[in-house]
Amino acid sequence: MFTMKKPLILITNDDGIVAPGIRTLIEIMKEIGDIIVVAPDSPQSAMGHAITLNNTITIEKIHLDKERFEVYSCSGTPVDCVKIAVHEILKKKPDLCVSGINHGSNSSINVIYSGTMSAAVEAGIEGIPAIGFSLLDYSWDANFEPIKKYVKQIALGVLEKGLPEGVILNVNFPKLSEEELKGIKICRQAKAMWQEEFDKRINPQGKEYYWLTGKFVNQDKGTDTDEWALANGYISIVPVQFDLTAHHAIQHLNAWEL
Amino acid sequence: MFTMKKPLILITNDDGIVAPGIRTLIEIMKEIGDIIVVAPDSPQSAMGHAITLNNTITIEKIHLDKERFEVYSCSGTPVDCVKIAVHEILKKKPDLCVSGINHGSNSSINVIYSGTMSAAVEAGIEGIPAIGFSLLDYSWDANFEPIKKYVKQIALGVLEKGLPEGVILNVNFPKLSEEELKGIKICRQAKAMWQEEFDKRINPQGKEYYWLTGKFVNQDKGTDTDEWALANGYISIVPVQFDLTAHHAIQHLNAWEL
Repeated sequence: MFTMKKPLILITNDDGIVAPGIRTLIEIMKEIGDIIVVAPDSPQSAMGHAITLNNTITIEKIHLDKERFEVYSCSGTPVDCVKIAVHEILKKKPDLCVSGINHGSNSSINVIYSGTMSAAVEAGIEGIPAIGFSLLDYSWDANFEPIKKYVKQIALGVLEKGLPEGVILNVNFPKLSEEELKGIKICRQAKAMWQEEFDKRINPQGKEYYWLTGKFVNQDKGTDTDEWALANGYISIVPVQFDLTAHHAIQHLNAWEL
Repeated sequence: MFTMKKPLILITNDDGIVAPGIRTLIEIMKEIGDIIVVAPDSPQSAMGHAITLNNTITIEKIHLDKERFEVYSCSGTPVDCVKIAVHEILKKKPDLCVSGINHGSNSSINVIYSGTMSAAVEAGIEGIPAIGFSLLDYSWDANFEPIKKYVKQIALGVLEKGLPEGVILNVNFPKLSEEELKGIKICRQAKAMWQEEFDKRINPQGKEYYWLTGKFVNQDKGTDTDEWALANGYISIVPVQFDLTAHHAIQHLNAWEL
């Protein structure tokens, strides 16, 4: 279908409008369709599915280069960006929403803290096919070259085939060269977590404060998980849903006779 | 088991440490076990699963009354509160974490935006049995009297029977009198969403800004949903999970041969 008409693609992220990751995503998506960019005006990592209810939101049309597409910088969270793009900026529903490319992993439990993925999930809630992309490299000068062709291929696949209702793709790339990348695996979210370690310090006024740090611990031995795929040279794709119901537990709880 | 030893109960919320909802929860939980309160120092509604990575976190031991239990006010998000409670304040893992009682609904899709539920889910990730409680009344002077006995009953049930691994309870109460409440239903999350309507205004400097507002739309006709239960006089309990994998979509995507 998209061979007849250029698809409209909404691009967002959580690292902010000037991050190299979103610049790369813009570059790739320009080859596929008409694009519009609405991204946070400052880094919003780990914002989860936060929205701005107790404060105002502003948007600023900015000019990153002389391209013809529109770029908006938004004071809100990644989820706010998607909401305001769909309901205030765009005249019609986009054919695809892509979020990222995140500087750093959003595999396994990270999906729940991730602003990148929450933006994609919000688009999914709005009925827009959506993908979050992340590269396992936190550095600002991460090398996105090896993964470009896969980003394009996955986006084209979703445009062509669509996604099951209520499903969003969480795509993570290992930090490898193009030769080392072994291909794509469809995975489940690994059962892993962060073991927090708070770094306690004293400020110049003598008051204690903390920095949140932690160690990522994967207790999941499965070979069908995103962590396994990434550790073994594969790109992981986890289909993600926003129905959080633990359906398997309903029967169990019904037996309680509350 | 808890008849032999008093359980340790961690209490948090997203409306902030001084909200009447958490005061009610404290009152109820004091009857059941030893309690510790760690809650945000200011309202953190709709913060989702946000955590504080790019800023410092402070905690303040405060004295709300002359009780013997400890109360901490935390500068972070609801999820930060749970993390810092478990890893810095508490000497041992609590037997239960309760979050709320939220002033306002966290049914259906609201679960994903909710700070109340994200705090409970974070406790679940840490392996702590956890429950989020919400009353469908946004007002600060909401009447929690009719629901007290149910809050106690559900908390005691979880302490006694435990919860399946990776499952957290999302409990919502309709705004009804004790006589009108028909009992408890175990439900699935209704397929509903917010239709955003941005309220555009002009600030004194002539610059445009927005307030996020919206209309809640339930397209789900099922009688096994939380929305149905609440609309029909029942207390809804949805078992919630943090494995976001859409397992049913894995086979579908494997057929793509990416």
